[in-house]
Amino acid sequence: MRSLLDIHSVTKNEVYTIFNQASEYLLNPKDDVLVGKNIVLGFFEASTRTRISFDVAIQRLGGKSIQFLAQGSSISKGESFVDTIHTLNQYRIDGWIIRHAYALSPHLVQNETNSPVINAGDGSHQHPTQALLDAYTILQHLGNLEGKKILIVGDILHSRVARSEMELLQLLGASVGICAPGTLLPKYMEIPNYFPTIQQGMQWADAIITLRLQKERMVSGIIPSESEYQQYYGMNEKLLQSFPHVLVLHPGPANYGIELSMECMNYANVLIREQVKHGLAIRMAVLKHCLT
Amino acid sequence: MRSLLDIHSVTKNEVYTIFNQASEYLLNPKDDVLVGKNIVLGFFEASTRTRISFDVAIQRLGGKSIQFLAQGSSISKGESFVDTIHTLNQYRIDGWIIRHAYALSPHLVQNETNSPVINAGDGSHQHPTQALLDAYTILQHLGNLEGKKILIVGDILHSRVARSEMELLQLLGASVGICAPGTLLPKYMEIPNYFPTIQQGMQWADAIITLRLQKERMVSGIIPSESEYQQYYGMNEKLLQSFPHVLVLHPGPANYGIELSMECMNYANVLIREQVKHGLAIRMAVLKHCLT
Amino acid sequence: MRSLLDIHSVTKNEVYTIFNQASEYLLNPKDDVLVGKNIVLGFFEASTRTRISFDVAIQRLGGKSIQFLAQGSSISKGESFVDTIHTLNQYRIDGWIIRHAYALSPHLVQNETNSPVINAGDGSHQHPTQALLDAYTILQHLGNLEGKKILIVGDILHSRVARSEMELLQLLGASVGICAPGTLLPKYMEIPNYFPTIQQGMQWADAIITLRLQKERMVSGIIPSESEYQQYYGMNEKLLQSFPHVLVLHPGPANYGIELSMECMNYANVLIREQVKHGLAIRMAVLKHCLT
Repeated sequence: MRSLLDIHSVTKNEVYTIFNQASEYLLNPKDDVLVGKNIVLGFFEASTRTRISFDVAIQRLGGKSIQFLAQGSSISKGESFVDTIHTLNQYRIDGWIIRHAYALSPHLVQNETNSPVINAGDGSHQHPTQALLDAYTILQHLGNLEGKKILIVGDILHSRVARSEMELLQLLGASVGICAPGTLLPKYMEIPNYFPTIQQGMQWADAIITLRLQKERMVSGIIPSESEYQQYYGMNEKLLQSFPHVLVLHPGPANYGIELSMECMNYANVLIREQVKHGLAIRMAVLKHCLT
Repeated sequence: MRSLLDIHSVTKNEVYTIFNQASEYLLNPKDDVLVGKNIVLGFFEASTRTRISFDVAIQRLGGKSIQFLAQGSSISKGESFVDTIHTLNQYRIDGWIIRHAYALSPHLVQNETNSPVINAGDGSHQHPTQALLDAYTILQHLGNLEGKKILIVGDILHSRVARSEMELLQLLGASVGICAPGTLLPKYMEIPNYFPTIQQGMQWADAIITLRLQKERMVSGIIPSESEYQQYYGMNEKLLQSFPHVLVLHPGPANYGIELSMECMNYANVLIREQVKHGLAIRMAVLKHCLT
Repeated sequence: MRSLLDIHSVTKNEVYTIFNQASEYLLNPKDDVLVGKNIVLGFFEASTRTRISFDVAIQRLGGKSIQFLAQGSSISKGESFVDTIHTLNQYRIDGWIIRHAYALSPHLVQNETNSPVINAGDGSHQHPTQALLDAYTILQHLGNLEGKKILIVGDILHSRVARSEMELLQLLGASVGICAPGTLLPKYMEIPNYFPTIQQGMQWADAIITLRLQKERMVSGIIPSESEYQQYYGMNEKLLQSFPHVLVLHPGPANYGIELSMECMNYANVLIREQVKHGLAIRMAVLKHCLT
């Protein structure tokens, strides 16, 4: 039994254990390792794919999920997060999956419980299962990650996905590149390989992860305009046709027409739907790894 | 296995198959035709009676419903509808029940899946199960629909119920009349029998379906005032007393005091509560018809 | 089978039956008295601890809960409360647990059904299960309530908890004192023992129940300022240290820093977490008492 709070507490060995298990679950998506267990899906922030992935994963492993959504709860009356966790603890909880708008919230949950806690995205801090499923998806196509060049494009500043991904890809031996406007780069992050435009980045990369422009977290003026953003950092058909060997990923939900044009979905090297499929297998594998 | 996307793809024969099944379910509301099946209740727009009807119907037929409500999902982050459907597809889905604020959304779902899709209301377009339950309710009281005169009163412009109902009632041989202010009539709809006031319409009709004034879809100025609307198109005790043989239906939820006064609920020919009861039986019959 | 709509319809005998059952459930929190029963959790107003307590309680007793939250329902389209209840009645309902922002809403539900209705908080009117769990918690520590002095501090005006609690504590033989600014006292309530400041009240009391400042129900100007409120009515470490024998309760969710400072949670005589634990046992006992 262990928690998964962030990527830097995970070993290379553990990652490959999870990957191997995920490959088995892709072939045979059924197990009974969670029979008799209650797992909280504590989503204090909006989510579709992560929440549903975890919910289906728990169900396929024989467990029972207890969904807690912030809407309709006393959160609207100013209830503190820790009090909410304490209240949920009235169920006999065998594991916690936590998403929250504030960084380190899953760590606060860990202080209240001896059960494993899985971080399903905390503010702009970490989103380890997304990083795992993205790395796994790239690995399936490139055979291995050692020495491979992975470009992350777009809103690095607000992206928990980018933070988890940079750590994980480097742990697995890949080279990471960054392509983003200066206003969307964090102040104190070491930028490994910087590319000012997506065109230049694609010449270098084996795979590209485009990020969602997190409009809900932005202050005005941070990008000149959506159309200019699209011109310098957006993926489109022309680029896909010029670089047909480069893999393209997106953690979703995509702002079609900004970081990615709708037509891109029809290209074989755009792996977005495969990511969703792998997301389920990876989360099943993470649950097995953490909860048994 | 078939979908129910709209009324014009349904035959008279199918309608009576559904009606006969509904009559059986009214007597014995239990069956096992959905045992082992997962059905999505995808409600991208608010609903109480339709959602609960379908949920209970699925349960009574032995199936399992997977509820997806837009609140708390990534819809609020701008996630596309089709991406959401694709994410829900991670469950093994045997059928989809879709409500959405945009017309033809259930048809978009059908493009993504081979499983049957049931339209539970799409924008101002169609709401076939509501039309079926209303026609069924009238049929129970009038014995048959051939040649019967049914008046639809009120907000035709925004009403998916009216569109489905006009088609279905005419398919079943009834004469349809319309009573509404000109501003609440669609531009390109053929109006069969027009009555400028509810008083005139009631002299003609065997049954009246009053519609909810859809205030949430209206632009200002479309009706002169609520009290004038009520005067010309609202159902009240005086009218019920003058025409005691005319059946009165309302798809709900009613704006009491606008299209219908609260006191009307006490009259035997006001069939609103019966509609709710029939709604469950009709939806059970539709599910059996579509999913087996 | 009986309903629990308010405290003044409960006898002393019934209260002790519930308390004794709760003590048993604290030792062995499992029973099968609700097997095969459907119970509606109708929460028309936000809640975490009450909703979860009841949900877990139903589950521990073998029953099935049907959650209805106002969000995503036709409430947003102006559906009437009674129509909603009628719609929920399509399920075969063996009991109703109702929370609503308007006083006497559970009584309206009772008009529509022969099944028991449990009031889980209605406007500023009553919250009987909270009163029961608070009285039970005090009783566990003081041995009996006869002649004991219980001080209720804060927002009496908006508090359904205070109304239920005053009745229950007096029924059980305790003396009730009140400490609140005049603007937070109801006009027509008989105030038994009034204390202008919490300091004076604590000298008198065996136990103190501090109430949540219900900012969402307040008009501006009703308290001079939060910091002055805190000074005269707020619980803090200094007070706890001066009166170490006085028990301190709070129905939650607490506004930390207003009616209670965060540090108070570390003191052994602050029983807030114990209240949550007892809440589950009391609600199990209430469900058994009302539904069997």
